[in-house]
Amino acid sequence: MKIIHTADWHLGKLVHGLYMTDDQREVLNEFSQLVEEERPDAVVIAGDLYDRSVPPTAAVQLLDEILFKINVELKTPVIAISGNHDSAERLHFGSSWYKQNHFYLQGKLDSEFSPIRLGGLNFYTIPYAEPGTVRQLLEDDSIHSHQDAMKTIVGKIENQMNPNETNVFVGHAFVLGGKETDSERTLSVGGSGAVASDVFAPFDYTALGHLHSPDAIKHDSIRYSGSLMKYSFSEAKQRKSVSIIEFNEKGGFSIEEKCLQPKRDMREIEGMLDELLDPDYYQSQKVDDYLKVNLLDEGALIDPINKLRKVYPNVLHLERKIENVDARKKREYSPSHHDKKSDLDLFQQFYEEMTTQTFSESKRVTMSKIMQHVKREVESR
Amino acid sequence: MKIIHTADWHLGKLVHGLYMTDDQREVLNEFSQLVEEERPDAVVIAGDLYDRSVPPTAAVQLLDEILFKINVELKTPVIAISGNHDSAERLHFGSSWYKQNHFYLQGKLDSEFSPIRLGGLNFYTIPYAEPGTVRQLLEDDSIHSHQDAMKTIVGKIENQMNPNETNVFVGHAFVLGGKETDSERTLSVGGSGAVASDVFAPFDYTALGHLHSPDAIKHDSIRYSGSLMKYSFSEAKQRKSVSIIEFNEKGGFSIEEKCLQPKRDMREIEGMLDELLDPDYYQSQKVDDYLKVNLLDEGALIDPINKLRKVYPNVLHLERKIENVDARKKREYSPSHHDKKSDLDLFQQFYEEMTTQTFSESKRVTMSKIMQHVKREVESR
Repeated sequence: MKIIHTADWHLGKLVHGLYMTDDQREVLNEFSQLVEEERPDAVVIAGDLYDRSVPPTAAVQLLDEILFKINVELKTPVIAISGNHDSAERLHFGSSWYKQNHFYLQGKLDSEFSPIRLGGLNFYTIPYAEPGTVRQLLEDDSIHSHQDAMKTIVGKIENQMNPNETNVFVGHAFVLGGKETDSERTLSVGGSGAVASDVFAPFDYTALGHLHSPDAIKHDSIRYSGSLMKYSFSEAKQRKSVSIIEFNEKGGFSIEEKCLQPKRDMREIEGMLDELLDPDYYQSQKVDDYLKVNLLDEGALIDPINKLRKVYPNVLHLERKIENVDARKKREYSPSHHDKKSDLDLFQQFYEEMTTQTFSESKRVTMSKIMQHVKREVESR
Repeated sequence: MKIIHTADWHLGKLVHGLYMTDDQREVLNEFSQLVEEERPDAVVIAGDLYDRSVPPTAAVQLLDEILFKINVELKTPVIAISGNHDSAERLHFGSSWYKQNHFYLQGKLDSEFSPIRLGGLNFYTIPYAEPGTVRQLLEDDSIHSHQDAMKTIVGKIENQMNPNETNVFVGHAFVLGGKETDSERTLSVGGSGAVASDVFAPFDYTALGHLHSPDAIKHDSIRYSGSLMKYSFSEAKQRKSVSIIEFNEKGGFSIEEKCLQPKRDMREIEGMLDELLDPDYYQSQKVDDYLKVNLLDEGALIDPINKLRKVYPNVLHLERKIENVDARKKREYSPSHHDKKSDLDLFQQFYEEMTTQTFSESKRVTMSKIMQHVKREVESR
């Protein structure tokens, strides 16, 4: 029994104002060729098929085409769940028809938790759901966090599953606590969004989506496949691949990663403007890659972005060293070392990264009050 | 061979700020009971399944449920096309899977025009498409109007169809020119949006959607089923029904209308506020209907809408007689008689009805220039 585990396709993704649909089409064609060569018993897509609840129509057409090719033309069973970027209800439309063709699309969470049985394996498919949704669906008022929700769900699955069979969990969640992570620490940092890895202990293999790197967790039986492609410059150095999992009869498995090569890579280059525009330099470069350019010049520059784009047509983002210096200075004001940061300092850092606004003293006071209030609430429970 | 012809479900419709989804669910449950009793060989839905390209998720779930019930549980083939309110691409998603279950969902127009063969009948399904879309798809630069587009499409169908078989056209368009209409006149009024009924002469039966009344056209073989429900007060006096068409072996057919009864009707009532609030009056009324109330009082009234809503909870719209008098006066200013109106006068009337803005002298001059320009263009072709 062999499956291909992938996730986080994010069809319809806009990166710095540019739709990635054509690039996604190319990579997905490569993917369907891989499916044709490997002939897996199932393709598992662990959420975030689309980048948003109402994706552009070109993305809708692309998903339709690629799934039809894999499921109908190549006769490969497909198991897919919705992620936090998908609309559970919109993605769910038609799933009752699809499953007759071994295309199991679980958009909405349901309270049955009955597995999909394929080739001797049981797949438990749990789409992304907010704690509130799970609380309502399971009528369990004790569910307040993702950790609570997942623990309750897995408990219900455990009650009905046969541990002597091979059981696979398919989910879309922020799971922490692998071999090399200080799980307690990160759980307290990540807050209610995270789920501890030990929740998934009952399963032989846990196929996850949500985090975009295949190295996001180091664990023997829990794995993120990583996203289909690089979707931001923070992922520039990640490798992008799908995972081929081959199960043996005792529930063990082997893993093989297959890299997908988009036509245009996403990466950063750095230098003085003149250096980057020098043919000696750029002739050794793949100039049509998607680029973030870090300019090291200090003085004023005339229209650097358009000069760069004459050589590198797909410059998506330009940063000046001077800005970096500013940012570095700013960072020096904030409390120094990660380990020593208070919750409030961590929130300030998060706030400033997310909003690019200053976390003013009055905001700090307000947030501090909220945190104290929540702390008291939690302690009095 | 028996089909049920329906159209214009407009799921997710907002009427005066109120979502009709619950009412639509009730009527559709009634409809699926009818399907269960009648056991037709196919249900034909001639477009506008949704009210907009991105309908609310409750509407998505409702369509999924009702089609699953009819198609899968009741094992009834379903033929559906998209209308101008649907998103062709979004609705099309998954149609390759559905058709394996005899659910033929034509979201996007394709250039094949091959029929669906069911029970000895050929169904040609033509979703709503703008003239520009058809021009591009068929690579035919002579297509400028809906009339051109439909004529070309029907021509292509005619080339490949067998006239000795029974051929049914399923479309979503503004078709004019039945028995009781002066077709040339109305075509010149309606402009490029309309299609002449004689275009559909090759078909034994033409199942249309778009216009909401089953009386919209009087023609032996062309029929609007009308919408599922009343969707505006201008439809208050229309009957709402679906059409059961029973074909005999010679291509002839009989028509039976089946009315659907929503829990709440949509209608107008008129009177003085005191009269309408008098128990002697309202006790004979179905007070929870969706109402437009025309108040005949002339003086000032204190909070009439809330007084009315205590008795009639679903008053959606309130009009005062005084406003009607104003409107009547306004109308007197516009050129007197329909038959004598110039194109410009007709446009003015259309503009004022659609925008509720005044058609100023400067707008009149601009429009007059445009009309002259277009006229010259057309004449010089």
